[in-house]
Amino acid sequence: MKKMIAGVFGAGRIGKFHVENLLQYDNVEVKTICDVQLDHLIEWNKDKNIFLTKNEDDIFDDKEINAIFIFSSTDQHISQLIKATQNVDYIFMEKPISKSIDATLEAWEIVKSKSKTIQLGFNRRFDPNFKKVKEARVKETIGVPHVLKITSRDPEPPGIDYVKVSGGIFMDMAIHDFDMSRYIVGSDVEEVFVMGDALVNPKIKEAGDIDTAIIQLKFANNALGVIDISREAVYGYDQRLELFGSKGAIIADNKVETSTKLLTKDCSCVDNPLHFFIERYIDAYKNEYETFIEAFMNNDNVICSFEDGLKAELIAEACKKSYETKTVVKVRGI
Amino acid sequence: MKKMIAGVFGAGRIGKFHVENLLQYDNVEVKTICDVQLDHLIEWNKDKNIFLTKNEDDIFDDKEINAIFIFSSTDQHISQLIKATQNVDYIFMEKPISKSIDATLEAWEIVKSKSKTIQLGFNRRFDPNFKKVKEARVKETIGVPHVLKITSRDPEPPGIDYVKVSGGIFMDMAIHDFDMSRYIVGSDVEEVFVMGDALVNPKIKEAGDIDTAIIQLKFANNALGVIDISREAVYGYDQRLELFGSKGAIIADNKVETSTKLLTKDCSCVDNPLHFFIERYIDAYKNEYETFIEAFMNNDNVICSFEDGLKAELIAEACKKSYETKTVVKVRGI
Amino acid sequence: MKKMIAGVFGAGRIGKFHVENLLQYDNVEVKTICDVQLDHLIEWNKDKNIFLTKNEDDIFDDKEINAIFIFSSTDQHISQLIKATQNVDYIFMEKPISKSIDATLEAWEIVKSKSKTIQLGFNRRFDPNFKKVKEARVKETIGVPHVLKITSRDPEPPGIDYVKVSGGIFMDMAIHDFDMSRYIVGSDVEEVFVMGDALVNPKIKEAGDIDTAIIQLKFANNALGVIDISREAVYGYDQRLELFGSKGAIIADNKVETSTKLLTKDCSCVDNPLHFFIERYIDAYKNEYETFIEAFMNNDNVICSFEDGLKAELIAEACKKSYETKTVVKVRGI
Amino acid sequence: MKKMIAGVFGAGRIGKFHVENLLQYDNVEVKTICDVQLDHLIEWNKDKNIFLTKNEDDIFDDKEINAIFIFSSTDQHISQLIKATQNVDYIFMEKPISKSIDATLEAWEIVKSKSKTIQLGFNRRFDPNFKKVKEARVKETIGVPHVLKITSRDPEPPGIDYVKVSGGIFMDMAIHDFDMSRYIVGSDVEEVFVMGDALVNPKIKEAGDIDTAIIQLKFANNALGVIDISREAVYGYDQRLELFGSKGAIIADNKVETSTKLLTKDCSCVDNPLHFFIERYIDAYKNEYETFIEAFMNNDNVICSFEDGLKAELIAEACKKSYETKTVVKVRGI
Repeated sequence: MKKMIAGVFGAGRIGKFHVENLLQYDNVEVKTICDVQLDHLIEWNKDKNIFLTKNEDDIFDDKEINAIFIFSSTDQHISQLIKATQNVDYIFMEKPISKSIDATLEAWEIVKSKSKTIQLGFNRRFDPNFKKVKEARVKETIGVPHVLKITSRDPEPPGIDYVKVSGGIFMDMAIHDFDMSRYIVGSDVEEVFVMGDALVNPKIKEAGDIDTAIIQLKFANNALGVIDISREAVYGYDQRLELFGSKGAIIADNKVETSTKLLTKDCSCVDNPLHFFIERYIDAYKNEYETFIEAFMNNDNVICSFEDGLKAELIAEACKKSYETKTVVKVRGI
Repeated sequence: MKKMIAGVFGAGRIGKFHVENLLQYDNVEVKTICDVQLDHLIEWNKDKNIFLTKNEDDIFDDKEINAIFIFSSTDQHISQLIKATQNVDYIFMEKPISKSIDATLEAWEIVKSKSKTIQLGFNRRFDPNFKKVKEARVKETIGVPHVLKITSRDPEPPGIDYVKVSGGIFMDMAIHDFDMSRYIVGSDVEEVFVMGDALVNPKIKEAGDIDTAIIQLKFANNALGVIDISREAVYGYDQRLELFGSKGAIIADNKVETSTKLLTKDCSCVDNPLHFFIERYIDAYKNEYETFIEAFMNNDNVICSFEDGLKAELIAEACKKSYETKTVVKVRGI
Repeated sequence: MKKMIAGVFGAGRIGKFHVENLLQYDNVEVKTICDVQLDHLIEWNKDKNIFLTKNEDDIFDDKEINAIFIFSSTDQHISQLIKATQNVDYIFMEKPISKSIDATLEAWEIVKSKSKTIQLGFNRRFDPNFKKVKEARVKETIGVPHVLKITSRDPEPPGIDYVKVSGGIFMDMAIHDFDMSRYIVGSDVEEVFVMGDALVNPKIKEAGDIDTAIIQLKFANNALGVIDISREAVYGYDQRLELFGSKGAIIADNKVETSTKLLTKDCSCVDNPLHFFIERYIDAYKNEYETFIEAFMNNDNVICSFEDGLKAELIAEACKKSYETKTVVKVRGI
Repeated sequence: MKKMIAGVFGAGRIGKFHVENLLQYDNVEVKTICDVQLDHLIEWNKDKNIFLTKNEDDIFDDKEINAIFIFSSTDQHISQLIKATQNVDYIFMEKPISKSIDATLEAWEIVKSKSKTIQLGFNRRFDPNFKKVKEARVKETIGVPHVLKITSRDPEPPGIDYVKVSGGIFMDMAIHDFDMSRYIVGSDVEEVFVMGDALVNPKIKEAGDIDTAIIQLKFANNALGVIDISREAVYGYDQRLELFGSKGAIIADNKVETSTKLLTKDCSCVDNPLHFFIERYIDAYKNEYETFIEAFMNNDNVICSFEDGLKAELIAEACKKSYETKTVVKVRGI
């Protein structure tokens, strides 16, 4: 039986979370972690005994390593990815590919010929709710898709310092929703139109960004779409989706912790949406790894490729331009 | 086309409510109202021009009147009903038939031979929620019924003075649920067992009654049932029902005013159950009249007969005895 | 006590429905109905004894009549309205005001100086669901409004013949949603952007119209809005609304007939949204009349004025232009 | 930092499931598994390297082992438990304690003096839904508890061979609900009354058992309770609970896989209750281990003790007698 021997780039908060999960699979060994800083990993690694290094080549030159996970900071993604495609067949990389479309397009020119299996970390594709919506489209339970609606609201806005280097709300936050749009509708986005503003915090506007937007999409298959995003929903992480078509509609509501209802004189209370993204998407993360590991085991393709990541970025690019110009913008093809 | 010319006994709060509703049907004329007191009706009757009288014979002797509605106090029910059966073919009477099973049984001996159409005011049978549950049983969508569950909680307990003359919680309140049980399951109740207590207000116990009870039922078709009743649910009028069977279950939840959900930092709030019984059962009352009027127009039978009312009282009688003796009690047959 | 003596223009399907409802109010007398055709009313009027006439002046010249209801076809609205403002103080008129913005603006010049009370039939404002959303905004339960979302889908598309004379989807169908937008957000719409298509039926496109659209709104108070409309939702009349703000969100779901859930091996079924618009908005219609009658009794203002109707039409006008030009369009001011 | 070195008795289906979960805790080492059969464990143990043995003393005599898990068949429970109390301070044992109340009582006499920490595997106490209900009682959000209602239906009946040795529906299945009743209400059960039948499968009756029952409970604090159980709910594992009190009620509905709703012409479908008990209670199992491990680490008490297990069995004993005698039965004290 095949065994995955993994090398990992980057073990920050999310990287460690991923590694801890990967360690639970019998057929996966995390052999080496490479990070620019190692001190914070010593205690955490005590019972794991993973080889820690600052030298990237300890992963690239290790012939035993047959899968690479890239959880490093976004500016390291592309160089590590390109080297990884020279050394292993299976690569898992966190989104986004880069903060510059041009850099992403350049990388695309290099990796597209390599026929390596690259899975991007668009974890939401693996959420049971959204998978069920997608299945309803694939099985045509709701007929021909007419309208997609996504609500995507974070529980809290990021700090202004983060906003400044984030690449903007479309690339940083809505990118997930752009990927989801293509996945759910099963068609590329051709045109976008955006209205937006900083309604949550005016300092976000001063920092050159917005915090609230409504994004219209026109898909190649003629379906229409709308995404509304906000950096702050005080009641929790609001992640809903609806696909409407010629034979019906399917609506995915939020996930909650319990299915209890408390009835008192004042009101009937149900649970708020889960607040923390890891809690909200815990099943999605699990399914994401399993899909990748299964693809590795069976020499299969993955569900979310480099090309998908690139296309999401091109939609983000068009949205930024639409917001700035108040016009309909065509999404660049590849 | 047939026209219903109605005589009405009793125009208290609920009687007036009924009359106002009846007046909205084009094919119904309310000709005469007989009550022991008329003063409170003068103003209300101004634009209605109904003939008001204290003399019962103004209704019984009026050959034009072809339907009689009995909304008077319970102690007048039986004598008015028996005279009514001598004069008209269609009689609508509020529940319960009487406060004494023996009196009800005597009346049954008289009316059962008359082949008149008597509809009792078990309005809940006509509630869209509960009708849908019954249909699921009739169409066998849920297969053979195994377990019936009824939750029946009033929003507020009655005053102690009322409790003293109410005939007890089983005859006064649970009687609706006993009728509902037979209607939903489609079978007679053979045995009952009851545990109960005054948990809402100890003064109710001093007055010789209880305010909370769990009632088990064994039906002739072997199904089991359970009713839990309470005189006080602070969050509203709690009227739920569930039928479970070999092929599934159907659950009827409460009715609410709006289908809104308010999400704030503190909680996600939905509407409380409707509080007021008339508001809760407004559709049921409407359907109740319509069924009676249609039966009249088409010479049909009604859905809820004198016999049904009698059977509900016999279950109440058995429950009272079960509570007092802490034993299983067989329901008397007729 | 004041009494409303009503004259009614137009007794087609919806006009008769309205009259039947008005007849249930003790303080309202429907004295005269004027229609271009009377034959279809003879039987219906038998027990009502309303004076039927083809002569408009039988209403305008009747000094006893103190309120006028205009339920006639849209092309008669303005001329009847203007004459009505010369004769009575209270006028109720079905929407839309006219099919031509210019005609509506001309009428506005005439009626705005008259200080008469004109209520337009935007019944949805009076729906308990949407009223509760509006209250949450007024009471600031959800804080400052950021995003309004409306889903508005008809159960079935109209015939092509109707489409041709309808004035287009924005004026004919979305006009309700435009009025609702202003009502819920409490601010005027300044700019719109629209994407749309004929996804339900290509013949609608041939007839010069579309059947599916996503409409973006920018409000004067900086809030953003989005309306998605469709001429056909096979599962029922889909009328949902959501207001999201700095302190929370309130979501109004559809109305259903029963609150039952059927659980079988195959699925857990709940009721579909109500199909028929009268059934869906039955409470809204009732509240609409009551508000108008109360305003009449207390010499109060109404909730939905001529000006509101005009503003909804101006939004529709801007949407049409936005769809045709694929640009952001400013809504004309008045 | 303390480390738990565990010895495990029994590695059947559920035992292996538990061990796999325990292995995910950094501070837990599963050192030894003792089972009557080892062949089926060889492959499974390959990457785990746990010491496998048929000799119980390999666990009892190992001074390094400081916690014992008993997942063996019920007839081995008591002897292993008693020996375990002589060797370690922390013991986790699957329910039920034994199939004979007398044996359980005898064991109680021995273990009660040992002051060891014994946690019984009533996993449902650790379910987030039911924990939230309990918290509402503890915090008095719903006031004084009046009525507890539990619905507990298995998705499929066990085979007749199992039924014959199961100890009967009360000891085998309802035992969970008896424990839950005491936990939720926070009071002992004093009296029970049961009606039951074999409505799912008559062969279960031939085997001396029933498959459907309604169980009434009277608690020491005067609250009333009712449990309805069935061996077969075709739509899934139906596990609901409701606590009603003087200030409100809290209702725990079933868990579902997704929060999607599919609307088509035929119906609006939501997910059925989860079918498989491990899937349904996956969080409960996780919380159960964590509570035990935390108690071990902090020298704390556990939430579900031997005494709790004994009391659940005494309620089961009373229910069996009540069913057989059709009388109210007092629960034996200890």
